[in-house]
Amino acid sequence: MASRTHRGIPLSALNPKFLHTNSTSHTWPFSAIAELLDNAYDPDVRAKKFWIDWTCIKGLDCLSFMDNGAGMTRGKMHKMLSFGFSDKKATKGHVPVGVYGNGFKSGSMRLGKDAMVFTKTKDSMTVGFLSQSYLEAIRAQQVLVPIITFMRDGQNLYPLTDAASLQAILKHSIFNTEIELFSELRAISVVGATGTRIIIWNLRKTTNGETEFDFSADRYDIRANHSDCSGESQSMTPESGYSLRAYCKILYLKPRMQIILRGQKVKTELISKSLAHIAIDNYRPTFLSKRVWITFGFNTKNKEHYGIMMYHKNRLIKAYERVGCQRKAEKKGVGVIGVIECNFLQPTHNKQDFDNTDKYRKTIHNLGVKLEEYWNEIRYKRKKEDPQCTMPIEDILKFPDQSWVQCDRCLKWRRLPDGIDCNILPEMWFCSMNPDPQFRSCHVEEEPEDQEEEQHSYPKTYKQEDGLSAQCKQLKEELKNMRQRENKRRSPYSALCAEEDRGTLWTLRHRIGRLLVSFVPALDLNQVDYNSSVIDEMLAQVLQELS
Amino acid sequence: MASRTHRGIPLSALNPKFLHTNSTSHTWPFSAIAELLDNAYDPDVRAKKFWIDWTCIKGLDCLSFMDNGAGMTRGKMHKMLSFGFSDKKATKGHVPVGVYGNGFKSGSMRLGKDAMVFTKTKDSMTVGFLSQSYLEAIRAQQVLVPIITFMRDGQNLYPLTDAASLQAILKHSIFNTEIELFSELRAISVVGATGTRIIIWNLRKTTNGETEFDFSADRYDIRANHSDCSGESQSMTPESGYSLRAYCKILYLKPRMQIILRGQKVKTELISKSLAHIAIDNYRPTFLSKRVWITFGFNTKNKEHYGIMMYHKNRLIKAYERVGCQRKAEKKGVGVIGVIECNFLQPTHNKQDFDNTDKYRKTIHNLGVKLEEYWNEIRYKRKKEDPQCTMPIEDILKFPDQSWVQCDRCLKWRRLPDGIDCNILPEMWFCSMNPDPQFRSCHVEEEPEDQEEEQHSYPKTYKQEDGLSAQCKQLKEELKNMRQRENKRRSPYSALCAEEDRGTLWTLRHRIGRLLVSFVPALDLNQVDYNSSVIDEMLAQVLQELS
Repeated sequence: MASRTHRGIPLSALNPKFLHTNSTSHTWPFSAIAELLDNAYDPDVRAKKFWIDWTCIKGLDCLSFMDNGAGMTRGKMHKMLSFGFSDKKATKGHVPVGVYGNGFKSGSMRLGKDAMVFTKTKDSMTVGFLSQSYLEAIRAQQVLVPIITFMRDGQNLYPLTDAASLQAILKHSIFNTEIELFSELRAISVVGATGTRIIIWNLRKTTNGETEFDFSADRYDIRANHSDCSGESQSMTPESGYSLRAYCKILYLKPRMQIILRGQKVKTELISKSLAHIAIDNYRPTFLSKRVWITFGFNTKNKEHYGIMMYHKNRLIKAYERVGCQRKAEKKGVGVIGVIECNFLQPTHNKQDFDNTDKYRKTIHNLGVKLEEYWNEIRYKRKKEDPQCTMPIEDILKFPDQSWVQCDRCLKWRRLPDGIDCNILPEMWFCSMNPDPQFRSCHVEEEPEDQEEEQHSYPKTYKQEDGLSAQCKQLKEELKNMRQRENKRRSPYSALCAEEDRGTLWTLRHRIGRLLVSFVPALDLNQVDYNSSVIDEMLAQVLQELS
Repeated sequence: MASRTHRGIPLSALNPKFLHTNSTSHTWPFSAIAELLDNAYDPDVRAKKFWIDWTCIKGLDCLSFMDNGAGMTRGKMHKMLSFGFSDKKATKGHVPVGVYGNGFKSGSMRLGKDAMVFTKTKDSMTVGFLSQSYLEAIRAQQVLVPIITFMRDGQNLYPLTDAASLQAILKHSIFNTEIELFSELRAISVVGATGTRIIIWNLRKTTNGETEFDFSADRYDIRANHSDCSGESQSMTPESGYSLRAYCKILYLKPRMQIILRGQKVKTELISKSLAHIAIDNYRPTFLSKRVWITFGFNTKNKEHYGIMMYHKNRLIKAYERVGCQRKAEKKGVGVIGVIECNFLQPTHNKQDFDNTDKYRKTIHNLGVKLEEYWNEIRYKRKKEDPQCTMPIEDILKFPDQSWVQCDRCLKWRRLPDGIDCNILPEMWFCSMNPDPQFRSCHVEEEPEDQEEEQHSYPKTYKQEDGLSAQCKQLKEELKNMRQRENKRRSPYSALCAEEDRGTLWTLRHRIGRLLVSFVPALDLNQVDYNSSVIDEMLAQVLQELS
């Protein structure tokens, strides 16, 4: 290892193997793809559209990613191919997701061994090459990143200094002529005046020799290749765990960029608006001066997928994170989704988790408390409205409280009047189609968010003691009624009583039998003689086992 | 950003901020400490002992780590302070944990902002400085890593080229004179001829301004500062989650290095030998030519802490990972620990998880199958041996099947005869104290491992159908007996019967009441009149709610 110094002090060096090391933080391929989405979404690029495709170049499976954002200068490309250079800043309230200056490296090198970046700004076109195969082939001891820049006057002019980079790219990438490079740059022009296009090849393979993605199951989706999983574990996994389309739908709390996956638009979802029985709550953490808002509601699609959706600066970090009572085997909080934007926490390296600090632990604790309050409130209210209801609330078919749709032109979100089913809207929807005249133009601002400081939390009527005392009252009432009825029945006709008792006994044993089945699955009720004491003895046994 | 090139091709650069970025993969401080342990344990260093201490230097809390391993040359120090340079190789069957060449950087920079490394080989002494504070102070655009080397002839001679590094260290570290540097190097001499000492300061703080470690709760331990957690979640967390001593006990499947934490030896644990009802199973994955061995057994300390302990090359990666039936709310597999060494999987960046590949998912699936087989087998055997037993197996007090102890001189593990309680052994134990004369010397090799190819899996007697038919048979027998008794009772004395029925009814209602309490917690049995039909009606109501 050649030791480079700066004014006599050694410099830390970067081995080509580190490209792989660094990519191992993504345990899941979609988290690598999300890094590329973030780069296009962030305010320095501000793409309106992002295309994800599977393609085949010279017999090799490739993933391609393209955006119509601002593009990169040569300097910015070099930073993108270096480590830790992030100068993303918030502009016009649009806070960047990226902070670490590591997303492209860790993401692209997780997906495949080699990546090429084509980018166009107003003034220049640049091609950059990050490739493990290339560095292995030349036995590099450092991470070389060939970069070539063209002026946008159409002339294939580049400074002499890029000659070595051009040669390296043509020799070691899948683009072996300048013409091929230019045709990729031209592909950007189709989508906009500026933009960036990334091609990744030598995709990660599974042990079967297949790529880790399934491109054939759904021609408009990219699926994580989970063929080895049993059907059961598949159904336990939320769709966003194996369908890139489903993941893209919820990746941003407020989607601002249109994603086109294999030619078809991803219908993004405002998750906090897709719930039923929505209630908004808040609390002020000890370490913050501002209140934090949480939206609770029931998943209207699948009660098995519940927990907190934790966003950070609009980007999904943890999905379906179970908190409080949801973590216990109590069947409490089932079906309940919470949505929170935790800008005060620090995401980890792979943006799939938060740093496990005291702030994080306090947040999870508070989310647990708030979620249980919501759960109790909803159940209490339901019991009050319909005391006869016996079906658990999570099992009832539900519909979202509100319907929202995104304009395909201005990308603003519009609330639809109640009664309109989002599923029957046309493929393309524009503000001009809005039934509500107040918001029928792309020039009108969006309806303000609910989570403003002026907003209040939902009113909480359920109290621990209230709930209990109500229950007690009800039971006492029932007991009283039963006693009265019993007293009436206790007549002097004792012989009749004896016969009645016999009947009561039979009925009782019959009912106990039905209850016992859940404790003794092998019990065959058809074989039971309810005039005998079989059931009585079984009950005694079950009780003994339970105590 | 100055663009460095290599023969005309730009080099990827490394921003000082990347030190922090890279450290964010450790969400948990003990995983950062484990990286430093691995470095000392690995075959290129092969330390026999490792000291972890909390100390205070110039008013600053510091963590210090020291080993008596081989030490590092200047070249090796530079690689340690660079990224991705790992040339660790297996020697004498000792396979290195480290593969990525990233452990020291990610680990040390997770614990604190600044670190100093002192090391001694047979020929030289070297000091290296990795410091975010220093790089910020000089506004560095690259990662400078001051390194100075001394010859071991006792002369403070160093080449002129180190002058700039020395100056940087004395100005920006907590060691401001050469004398202070030498006294740290001398500290290594106390523990051995060679070794390495790492001091980390500007430790990570929590929001309260305290370090994230609690040094005062136990003077022989370092606790993760979880004061914000409720007692409940504390008890749900295995001790290794918050006690560094407990974590060090199980960090290596076969501990080979003694760890001394705050002056007191860590009594390492052979986890696979600390279990009760041990059974060894195996299977051959489709992607491997060798069988994989799994040790199952019951946790003898806490039935709440169960799941698979997944090791990779002797190092713990995932602890208490629940699989198969343990993930469902069925109360199956409770208390069962599995131990497996998955050398065929790839750990992630932070060595706290495996890359989520098809191999990993298949492994988890198979572990689930094998665990359920073990659970069924144990329960079936127990039922056969003692058909009357009613207490769930996980609730029975258990003791480890075997007792093992490690020699404090040669570090070999010796099995103790049954009946010897490990807890009453002297603080220091040597092979010479072994009651078994065959293994009473440090020169005798260890007993061979159980998991040899010649070994067989435990015999499986339980079969799904067998278990069911046995249960059916038993129930039929019981029913027959009950019917016979009943027939005897059904005599012509029907008046007596009526009275008897009345009594039976009372007893039955009394028992049902006890069962109903678990469905209707508010039910006060003291208020119930068992001669009335209150209980009958409640039962009917509960049944209706259940159906």
